[in-house]
Amino acid sequence: MLSVCLPGTGGFMPLGNRWLTCCWMEYQGRALLIDCGEGTQLALRAAGCRLSRLDTLLITHYHADHVAGLPGLLLSAGNSGKTSPLTIAGPPGLRYVVPALMMIAPVPYPVELVELGAGDALDGWDGLTVSSLPLKHRIPCYGYRVRVARKPVFNPQKAEALGIPKPLYRTLHAGEAVTLPDGRRIEPEQVLDGARRPLSVCYCTDTLPIPAIAEFARDADLMIAEGMYGDDAMEEKLREKMHSLFSQSARLAARADARRLWLTHYSPALADPQEWIGRARAEFPGAVAAHDGIRITLGGE
Amino acid sequence: MLSVCLPGTGGFMPLGNRWLTCCWMEYQGRALLIDCGEGTQLALRAAGCRLSRLDTLLITHYHADHVAGLPGLLLSAGNSGKTSPLTIAGPPGLRYVVPALMMIAPVPYPVELVELGAGDALDGWDGLTVSSLPLKHRIPCYGYRVRVARKPVFNPQKAEALGIPKPLYRTLHAGEAVTLPDGRRIEPEQVLDGARRPLSVCYCTDTLPIPAIAEFARDADLMIAEGMYGDDAMEEKLREKMHSLFSQSARLAARADARRLWLTHYSPALADPQEWIGRARAEFPGAVAAHDGIRITLGGE
Repeated sequence: MLSVCLPGTGGFMPLGNRWLTCCWMEYQGRALLIDCGEGTQLALRAAGCRLSRLDTLLITHYHADHVAGLPGLLLSAGNSGKTSPLTIAGPPGLRYVVPALMMIAPVPYPVELVELGAGDALDGWDGLTVSSLPLKHRIPCYGYRVRVARKPVFNPQKAEALGIPKPLYRTLHAGEAVTLPDGRRIEPEQVLDGARRPLSVCYCTDTLPIPAIAEFARDADLMIAEGMYGDDAMEEKLREKMHSLFSQSARLAARADARRLWLTHYSPALADPQEWIGRARAEFPGAVAAHDGIRITLGGE
Repeated sequence: MLSVCLPGTGGFMPLGNRWLTCCWMEYQGRALLIDCGEGTQLALRAAGCRLSRLDTLLITHYHADHVAGLPGLLLSAGNSGKTSPLTIAGPPGLRYVVPALMMIAPVPYPVELVELGAGDALDGWDGLTVSSLPLKHRIPCYGYRVRVARKPVFNPQKAEALGIPKPLYRTLHAGEAVTLPDGRRIEPEQVLDGARRPLSVCYCTDTLPIPAIAEFARDADLMIAEGMYGDDAMEEKLREKMHSLFSQSARLAARADARRLWLTHYSPALADPQEWIGRARAEFPGAVAAHDGIRITLGGE
């Protein structure tokens, strides 16, 4: 199961009632964070995300609202007991920006920096992988797709028919053969119903609504995309600033056949995103205007 | 008149209900800020401080809780319409730390960096001056004393006796001679009661309670000093971390003959500073445990 949370949903600057956009995912007890603007450590605390679990930090780009919270976050992770290594990955420039910010943040755990070339992938842990897509913003900016492998479905009817004691079910489901008390050896394939597609979450902000996003987000369980404004009248302004409207991101989600869509990275001028959700739902009926702390667990079904 | 506000009063990390310690002073429509940790731009907004007025930023030292909010603050000042130059001053190291943090914060106004040597002073505007004192912390750290000159007291009895029309009072108080309708020339000295001592605010955190602070804060109108913990039992721990107790700072304020004392820079573990104020008042009866947003106007009396 993959738990996904947006502790913050704002863009440009933190507000008293809306933290900057970031995404926290937990899988097998370890966590991945995308982006870290000013105040993200507070947003994480408010959303119940445990910094000591942080394993991987992905940065989309080096605008302050996506990275300025790094020193405080890294220090607080150390104070929360983190001693395991942290991987920080992002577009070219990482090796200049992150050490500069870390000048004021000496941490008690190893930090590995990974500059990702266009389209590069990153291996996480326990079958978690990350792929990247160059977006279209004023500076180099990546979208990310996080995939986690899933175990095949266990079929209890088959297991029962073979007379397998229940305490052995878990071992077989994990892919290991077992030997029964009567001496028979059972292979996992005898009780499993074949492979399941991996779970995947696609995260794309800040960007113009380029067609490549629809390909990148193909069949995603959850697409998290930019909704700077709901009002289509802002299109011209956003073209210049290189951001996306609710309707534009929803159109891409529909083309991608994504299963769910969360909009985020609202302009500080957008007081009530919910007011504009109709613009998105006209393109993608299940679109959700995310709020700080929104959370879902994927793969539990 | 000099307006002084502490938008935040915490140490180490921002909390949901307490911002990091910083000090905002306004004089003649321009503002000076001391320190800028993560979230300080939000603390300023909550306290009603207008970023567009920011003229001078003093940094005490380069621990993240005093400087990590710099990129966001500088960008938001630009967004709030600031175009006038900004002076940023602090201990040696400024020329490395500030440009590193500004890598993610391109701003539309000129920024002048001033590295202050031990004891160096800085000229502000309209008679505002800043002096510095090296404190005793784990890394180089300065205390600051901000002084503003005051106009001599205007004596309305003298003016009335001379038959001066009221609309001319302001010109005379500002130090300019006037000519009356009957042709007499009046010099300012004829209606003023002599010079007044400047107003001064002394700000000392983070530091061990060194005797030099009492000299530096001599007769200050307001001393703002560190109160990491109220409980004297924490002294040993604070000696190691190089911070000060309520009672230690209050003793220095008493020795300095300061007129007022605000304690700040509380440990995140200190939930209710007011609970310990007795420890400070035993040394300095008027001691105040500052809270986020505390404000005073000096020189209005």
